[in-house]
Amino acid sequence: MKNPVTRDTHSRSIAKAESWGKETPSAVLWFTGLSGSGKSTIAQYVFGYLAKGGFRVESLDGDSIRDIFPNTGFTRSEREAHIQRVGFLASRLERNGVFVVASLVSPYEASRQFVRRLCSNFIEIYVATPLEECERRDVKGLYAKARRGEIQHFTGIDDPYEPPVNPELTLDTTKTNVEDAGNAILALLQNRLEGAT
Amino acid sequence: MKNPVTRDTHSRSIAKAESWGKETPSAVLWFTGLSGSGKSTIAQYVFGYLAKGGFRVESLDGDSIRDIFPNTGFTRSEREAHIQRVGFLASRLERNGVFVVASLVSPYEASRQFVRRLCSNFIEIYVATPLEECERRDVKGLYAKARRGEIQHFTGIDDPYEPPVNPELTLDTTKTNVEDAGNAILALLQNRLEGAT
Repeated sequence: MKNPVTRDTHSRSIAKAESWGKETPSAVLWFTGLSGSGKSTIAQYVFGYLAKGGFRVESLDGDSIRDIFPNTGFTRSEREAHIQRVGFLASRLERNGVFVVASLVSPYEASRQFVRRLCSNFIEIYVATPLEECERRDVKGLYAKARRGEIQHFTGIDDPYEPPVNPELTLDTTKTNVEDAGNAILALLQNRLEGAT
Repeated sequence: MKNPVTRDTHSRSIAKAESWGKETPSAVLWFTGLSGSGKSTIAQYVFGYLAKGGFRVESLDGDSIRDIFPNTGFTRSEREAHIQRVGFLASRLERNGVFVVASLVSPYEASRQFVRRLCSNFIEIYVATPLEECERRDVKGLYAKARRGEIQHFTGIDDPYEPPVNPELTLDTTKTNVEDAGNAILALLQNRLEGAT
C-alpha cells in the first residue's frame, strides 16, 4: 500500500497552519479500543509524524494520566469522569491550535459523544482488534489477572466495551500494520483539515 | 500609578514569541484566594490583555470547570484532585505555548506546590483580600449560606485556607484596584519571560 500522505502535501498544510496563528486548524485524534488492541502504538506513530512535521501536538495516554491521578478508579462513573476530563483537556488544547493524540480504552459511547461535542474536529478511531487477539497478546498480563479475578472492572472481561456507533475510522491490527494504519489516519486528518479551511 | 507595561515593549514580546514556534515562552498565572476575593475579576483583566495582544491564552476558572464535572465535591481529597487536574491541564497548555490564567480558591499549599512542579513558569498570585471583606461582599450569597450551615466545606468558614508560603505576588483588593493589580501582574510576567529567554 502506497503512503497516501506525501511529504510535499503535508508540508503545505504545515506552512498554512503556522500562518494562521490562533485560528490554526487542529484536531483531536481519539483512539478507542480494548487493552492490547494496539491503540497506543498507532497513536505514537501518528504523534511522531505530527511532531516531526513541526506541529504543536500533545499525546494524552489514559494510563499515563491515571499514573498522575492514582485515585481515578474503574467503576463506570469513575471511568466516565476520567474520559470526560481527558476530553475537556483535549478540547482546550485543540482550540489553542494543538493537535491531540489521545489513547484511552474509553469504553462508553455516551462519554465519547460528550468529548465529541466539546471538540471542533473530533476524529474517533476505533481500534477494533478482536478480544481474543488482545487477550492472546496480553502485553501487560492484565487479561490473565482479570480472568483469575485479581482485578475487577476489566473491559472485555467483566466490564462492557460499547463499540463506536459512527467512528471516523475503524482499524483491526490483525489485518493492518502500524504504518498503514497510521498513514490512513494522517490521510483522513489531512482531508478533514482541508475541508475545514 | 503609571501602567508599567507599555504597548511597545509588549508587542516586542509577542513578535518574539511567535517566531519561536513550539518553544514559545508561556506561563501559568495561578490566582488563589478566598471566594469573593476578586481573583476572577483580576484574572479576566489579565486574560483580556493577553488575548488582545495576540497571545494564545486560555482561562481556567475553578467554578466553570466544576460546572462541566458536577461530581467534583468539596472534601479535602476531592478539592486536591480537582486542583491537581486543573493544574495538569494548565501545564499541558503551557508547554504548548498557551498562556493560562487560572482562577481557583485552591486552598491547600501542597496542591498548589504539585501544580507548580508540573509547570515551567508557574506564577502564583495570592489575592489576599481579608475574609471580612470577602464576606461583606458575598457576591454569590455563599458566605451567608455557609454561616447558616446550608453548605459545608466552605473555605474560610468551616474549611481552612492555607496562605501561599512563597507566592510570586500578593495583592489585597481593599488596597489595589483591578487595573493596577492587573498591570503589576503583566509587568511581573514580562520580567519572568525576559529572564527565561
